[in-house]
Amino acid sequence: MPELICELCRQFYHLGWVSGTGGGISIRGPEGIYIAPSGVQKERLKPADIFLLRDLPHDEVREDHACEVLRGPNGLKISECRPLFFNAYRLRGAGAVMHSHSLWAVLAARLAAPDGGPGEFVCRGLEMQKGLRGVGCFDTLRVPIIANTAREAELTASMAEAMTAYPGVDAVLVAGHGVYVWGVDWAQAKTQAECYDYLFRAVVESHRLGLPVGG
Amino acid sequence: MPELICELCRQFYHLGWVSGTGGGISIRGPEGIYIAPSGVQKERLKPADIFLLRDLPHDEVREDHACEVLRGPNGLKISECRPLFFNAYRLRGAGAVMHSHSLWAVLAARLAAPDGGPGEFVCRGLEMQKGLRGVGCFDTLRVPIIANTAREAELTASMAEAMTAYPGVDAVLVAGHGVYVWGVDWAQAKTQAECYDYLFRAVVESHRLGLPVGG
Amino acid sequence: MPELICELCRQFYHLGWVSGTGGGISIRGPEGIYIAPSGVQKERLKPADIFLLRDLPHDEVREDHACEVLRGPNGLKISECRPLFFNAYRLRGAGAVMHSHSLWAVLAARLAAPDGGPGEFVCRGLEMQKGLRGVGCFDTLRVPIIANTAREAELTASMAEAMTAYPGVDAVLVAGHGVYVWGVDWAQAKTQAECYDYLFRAVVESHRLGLPVGG
Amino acid sequence: MPELICELCRQFYHLGWVSGTGGGISIRGPEGIYIAPSGVQKERLKPADIFLLRDLPHDEVREDHACEVLRGPNGLKISECRPLFFNAYRLRGAGAVMHSHSLWAVLAARLAAPDGGPGEFVCRGLEMQKGLRGVGCFDTLRVPIIANTAREAELTASMAEAMTAYPGVDAVLVAGHGVYVWGVDWAQAKTQAECYDYLFRAVVESHRLGLPVGG
Repeated sequence: MPELICELCRQFYHLGWVSGTGGGISIRGPEGIYIAPSGVQKERLKPADIFLLRDLPHDEVREDHACEVLRGPNGLKISECRPLFFNAYRLRGAGAVMHSHSLWAVLAARLAAPDGGPGEFVCRGLEMQKGLRGVGCFDTLRVPIIANTAREAELTASMAEAMTAYPGVDAVLVAGHGVYVWGVDWAQAKTQAECYDYLFRAVVESHRLGLPVGG
Repeated sequence: MPELICELCRQFYHLGWVSGTGGGISIRGPEGIYIAPSGVQKERLKPADIFLLRDLPHDEVREDHACEVLRGPNGLKISECRPLFFNAYRLRGAGAVMHSHSLWAVLAARLAAPDGGPGEFVCRGLEMQKGLRGVGCFDTLRVPIIANTAREAELTASMAEAMTAYPGVDAVLVAGHGVYVWGVDWAQAKTQAECYDYLFRAVVESHRLGLPVGG
Repeated sequence: MPELICELCRQFYHLGWVSGTGGGISIRGPEGIYIAPSGVQKERLKPADIFLLRDLPHDEVREDHACEVLRGPNGLKISECRPLFFNAYRLRGAGAVMHSHSLWAVLAARLAAPDGGPGEFVCRGLEMQKGLRGVGCFDTLRVPIIANTAREAELTASMAEAMTAYPGVDAVLVAGHGVYVWGVDWAQAKTQAECYDYLFRAVVESHRLGLPVGG
Repeated sequence: MPELICELCRQFYHLGWVSGTGGGISIRGPEGIYIAPSGVQKERLKPADIFLLRDLPHDEVREDHACEVLRGPNGLKISECRPLFFNAYRLRGAGAVMHSHSLWAVLAARLAAPDGGPGEFVCRGLEMQKGLRGVGCFDTLRVPIIANTAREAELTASMAEAMTAYPGVDAVLVAGHGVYVWGVDWAQAKTQAECYDYLFRAVVESHRLGLPVGG
């Protein structure tokens, strides 16, 4: 699993999702929850850099977000995204969570919520919507946008609220920041993350052409 | 042939044509028709993931699109594009078919048919038109756009109609969705797919500059 | 040398200069003039695909563009660009010539000559101009644009005229088509081709921002 | 260290920062200061192409920028950026400096200083600002823009002035040219260079959407 995380991080780097050490990824395995470190160049991660945290039973949703490190590399810190990733694990039983700083996510959120959110990204009529759980290509897709906070961990409560308000959606946009996407396993999380990125870009590019999608 | 399909899928992934498991490819070989599976990450396909279907004689055009699997990987489904690929095999005697979700195809179709189609993509005066069968650089290229449907297989009849209406064109755009491109063999299909993608982008970028091509 | 040509073609493919079998490259070696074949996928060229032509003395400028093949792969045709490449060899004593279909070249030419040329691309004030022979960053760069023709070989005379009219410039833009760039050796030709592509894009992107460069 | 420089140059080439032999990189090691050569294709550098210069004590800030070559490849020249890199070493005690010709840096500077500078790039409200030393995501980031000069070395004094005027900022934009970014070590310099490039692009793309960031 650590090898897979490194491979996905290299791939995300080339997609422009994790430049400047930004973004992150976490995958739930049988041994616990794997998570990338903070502040490390994502395209250069090595398996030994990946943390393994104790998994938590589903009913521990409301606790203080503490976690127990089963295995951790010396000198590195766990990604600041940890409590946000745990939102997806606890509230949705996710198998993997990805956090991208893609510029398309940032621009799509800004277009939908120019004042910095909260708000809602809207899109309809695109085939790639079918790559998302429960969405057809003629449905109207609505993704919550939450306002950014000075520290990443402070997003935990508003992300959880947005997840509760949009039970059918596996993503939360953060204004000026990026997007969190999850899935039942890493493959679905990645597929959904790619579909969302495509849809964010489609809406931004359509807007530029004077042809808004959705909204 | 399965190795070639995997290699082309990796290449198409980097071109942005098959992200989020979207898009697909099929090649006709002496043993039958090779086709990629549905819902699998295209840049990670392995030769063992590729289906082999019984080829059909040219006069079976109007049947019910059933097919006989000669070899298929466990646990995977054949791409939903199969009946659309078979349109090209049956109506045109194609040797290979490619289906791309390229954003340039989607934007070009939207620009030409803002209401979702049917419609026609028009372009002229570009050298890359010469990479297309029977088209010169000063010709006016017209590519049919069909409306999208909730399920991919439902496109079969309207795609066949468009192919009949445009006998000189080896591509059909699907609004909000992407494009199907074929050729006498995989090399020509790929060359034409790349030329079309270039032309779609050229028209979109020219429109942004206030310098429309064709239309 | 054939290996280098294949390697450069792969690199140009990833730069978007030679998709759909378009574009080309030729390098002068001690044994003669190497040139890529026509209609072959440039990112898949193998050394055995490269032609070797007899080099010509400098004073044979005005002949009929015939050439003698010293070594040629079976079943392939010499690139249609041959007489255009020979313009650079004969009129300028070039050591290598590159032909790109880059969309930035096409858009920059269209912006400068919306009616399809002839015309002139103008740019000034960019550091990357210093990568071009004899150009400083505060100079005004002027690159000739010639009108496209139905067949590539028909460009030979107007390209030669443009080269004569702009003796200080190592590039000729072809409207709706792309650009020819040469240099004293392959390294300088490639460096200049990259600088031109950057400048073409810079002018197009600046225009989009309402901030024209040059003109 | 020379291997790392070559690897980073290849990576920067693919990011579009060092095409056409432009841009550069220098890293301070225990043996001295490593620096790439001038006018060489950055994606093709070999470790033997890298110069090693004698490091200078911190108090030699005001000297004539001469340097002593401890090891240098035959036939190559030291990058013209040397005195600019030394600005960062002397004035800031940097461990590494990167110079990019990224089009996003050029466009962002042009947008902020259409007359060619001096001026100031302004940005606020973006999470990626947190990848920069001492900057929070709600802070207003201000990066100095200096006017370009005919020769790179002539930028030395105005770059030093800008660095003195903006002690909290680890980057200087050069109008029509690119950006210099440094850090305490190569990893921080690269992280900051990537964050800046993202922010430059974010502001340019937002401007295109009619949604300015900062300013």
